[in-house]
Amino acid sequence: MLPAAALVLVVGLNGPSPRLRGGVNGGSRVSRSAVVNAATQQSPAGLGFNSHKPVSDVPDSLCRPDDGNADTQMRQKFERMCRAAQNKICAAIEEIDGTKFREDAWTRDGGGGGITRVLAGGNVFEKAGCSLSVVYGSMPAEALASATERGADRAKGIKPGERVPFFACGLSSVMHPRNPMAPTMHFNYRYFETDGGVWWFGGGTDITPAYLFEEDMRHFHGTYKEVCDKHDPDFYRKFKQWADEYFMIKHRGETRGLGGIFFDDLNDRPAEDIFKFSTECANAVVDAYVPIVAKRKDMEFTDEQKRWQQLRRGRYVEFNLVYDRGTIFGLKTGGRIESILMSLPETTRFEYDHHPVAGTPEAKIMDCFKKPRTWV
Amino acid sequence: MLPAAALVLVVGLNGPSPRLRGGVNGGSRVSRSAVVNAATQQSPAGLGFNSHKPVSDVPDSLCRPDDGNADTQMRQKFERMCRAAQNKICAAIEEIDGTKFREDAWTRDGGGGGITRVLAGGNVFEKAGCSLSVVYGSMPAEALASATERGADRAKGIKPGERVPFFACGLSSVMHPRNPMAPTMHFNYRYFETDGGVWWFGGGTDITPAYLFEEDMRHFHGTYKEVCDKHDPDFYRKFKQWADEYFMIKHRGETRGLGGIFFDDLNDRPAEDIFKFSTECANAVVDAYVPIVAKRKDMEFTDEQKRWQQLRRGRYVEFNLVYDRGTIFGLKTGGRIESILMSLPETTRFEYDHHPVAGTPEAKIMDCFKKPRTWV
Repeated sequence: MLPAAALVLVVGLNGPSPRLRGGVNGGSRVSRSAVVNAATQQSPAGLGFNSHKPVSDVPDSLCRPDDGNADTQMRQKFERMCRAAQNKICAAIEEIDGTKFREDAWTRDGGGGGITRVLAGGNVFEKAGCSLSVVYGSMPAEALASATERGADRAKGIKPGERVPFFACGLSSVMHPRNPMAPTMHFNYRYFETDGGVWWFGGGTDITPAYLFEEDMRHFHGTYKEVCDKHDPDFYRKFKQWADEYFMIKHRGETRGLGGIFFDDLNDRPAEDIFKFSTECANAVVDAYVPIVAKRKDMEFTDEQKRWQQLRRGRYVEFNLVYDRGTIFGLKTGGRIESILMSLPETTRFEYDHHPVAGTPEAKIMDCFKKPRTWV
Repeated sequence: MLPAAALVLVVGLNGPSPRLRGGVNGGSRVSRSAVVNAATQQSPAGLGFNSHKPVSDVPDSLCRPDDGNADTQMRQKFERMCRAAQNKICAAIEEIDGTKFREDAWTRDGGGGGITRVLAGGNVFEKAGCSLSVVYGSMPAEALASATERGADRAKGIKPGERVPFFACGLSSVMHPRNPMAPTMHFNYRYFETDGGVWWFGGGTDITPAYLFEEDMRHFHGTYKEVCDKHDPDFYRKFKQWADEYFMIKHRGETRGLGGIFFDDLNDRPAEDIFKFSTECANAVVDAYVPIVAKRKDMEFTDEQKRWQQLRRGRYVEFNLVYDRGTIFGLKTGGRIESILMSLPETTRFEYDHHPVAGTPEAKIMDCFKKPRTWV
């Protein structure tokens, strides 16, 4: 439904990353043949699932050392922003949970790498993950053209059949609390740049409660509306609707959760402006989400309510494995598997033909999944 | 990896089924424009997820009434075989479980329908499903050509751009026992026929234990080897390898389970011979599987062993939602959702970066998932 969104989501997270060893000055980089190993044979677009190299000391930057000139300065800048946001968000989650994230970092030959942080079996969170990824990859020119709403524009200077080297950096996160009254939250912010010199931003933050507390939704959506409104009066309306469309589980005719904002292929104003917007969005995660968790984490709940949460987590898995093109593409092109799939909830339920009873809280929120509402 | 297998799996289960209302004599059927409703707009290839009509009395045949002449006699015959096997297998499962399957049947305008049986919350089985599906659909000629190993052969007489009306009938089943020592079992047998007069059979039965009991694997594989050997000395070797390849979770580099047999696009001998083979395979399910469940269902197990089973069920979900093209295609083309997804285990776990400890039973079976073995 949103090819640009999907593709960028991929590479922002953990997309394909053939080993490019060409020249590195922006605009004239040449893709040489990737070194093909056994793992890549399954997926010619990717590196292979075992191409990442664990590192114990994370370098100051995962960008290539020469990515810092006038043409490519956004690369390191966006990475720095993501790393600062990762630190801030993980610290806030650790504080409310009382336990610590585990960290796994890796690099790749030819540049790029990532830092995945996962908190499992916490006091408040069943599973929380926050992952930075820096990718140097390439994709067929046609894929690039068809991957964007504005078509061939993205592949300028590239002949059909050629591969387009690209850079992508993104921070991605999913938090699954234990208490069924506390919502799951996901966000992803990413920057994408081809060696042809085109670039765009994408991202979003969305919330997935099992039970509806309207005040929580007003707080969450209101926080993001405020950020959006500072940058463009149309942003919130557009990006809220985009989220409602993107997070639709089509085979169910219902959304994964209660939305938020989602945008992609954004390059209609100076990069610096969009960078500021992305930064503020990433920095709003804690304010938008953590107070809701604080309010709900100790509420009492029944086994039936836990069961409903588990069923909704089953739907989360359905969305992520069937529709989230970032996940799918990552799986098929050889990203670091554990980082791609850290988004899956620790426990789920799949029941045959389950329908909430009319008039119950479960039916009430299901109405919102079937027919997205306006919250602010 | 196996396009023919995938596509046929789809339609045998719950594939696309536009409302064809053309003539019905074999070879001259004409596809008219499908009636498009809201649900179909998302997936032009399919009927829409709500196009099935529940029925309380299942008709004697779900085939079109005029599907019984010399050209189309295999349609009703295969359906009868599937329904008899469904009855036999469900009866055996009910007997060992002590509870009953629930049944949902449906028909579609223009012919076709299905009978889904699900046993949930049983004594022995957490979730067991067995579903018959009869589909009258159509697909683009190009899809048909590329969907088979023998290419254009399947689309003979059809011009590029035209849709090929087809008939498909299949019986599909997944059984998930509670006890982690008792394996999950899946089978699917299907018959596919285009109105151009080409036909083929596909199917297979495979087993997914969380713990390895070699004697069980020898029994299961041995039962199917015996059936295969009666029909062709090459069948077992070929179809066992095909299962090992098809059920590979590529992003994990491990198989879903310990295989069995899998075949598709089979039409290299008289239809009657392959029908007999398929019938014997379907009828071997009870003998191949139920004695293993009987032996394992009351074994003692620890919480850790249950947790490992749940993790393997997470992998089951990964395979079904990411790779099983029958599931994917069914989801995207508007099959009956609850029937498509009845295969998902009731409960699962997804842990970050879990690896079995060397030397444990979990590591032992993981070796078999990583490197398929010979059992008989």
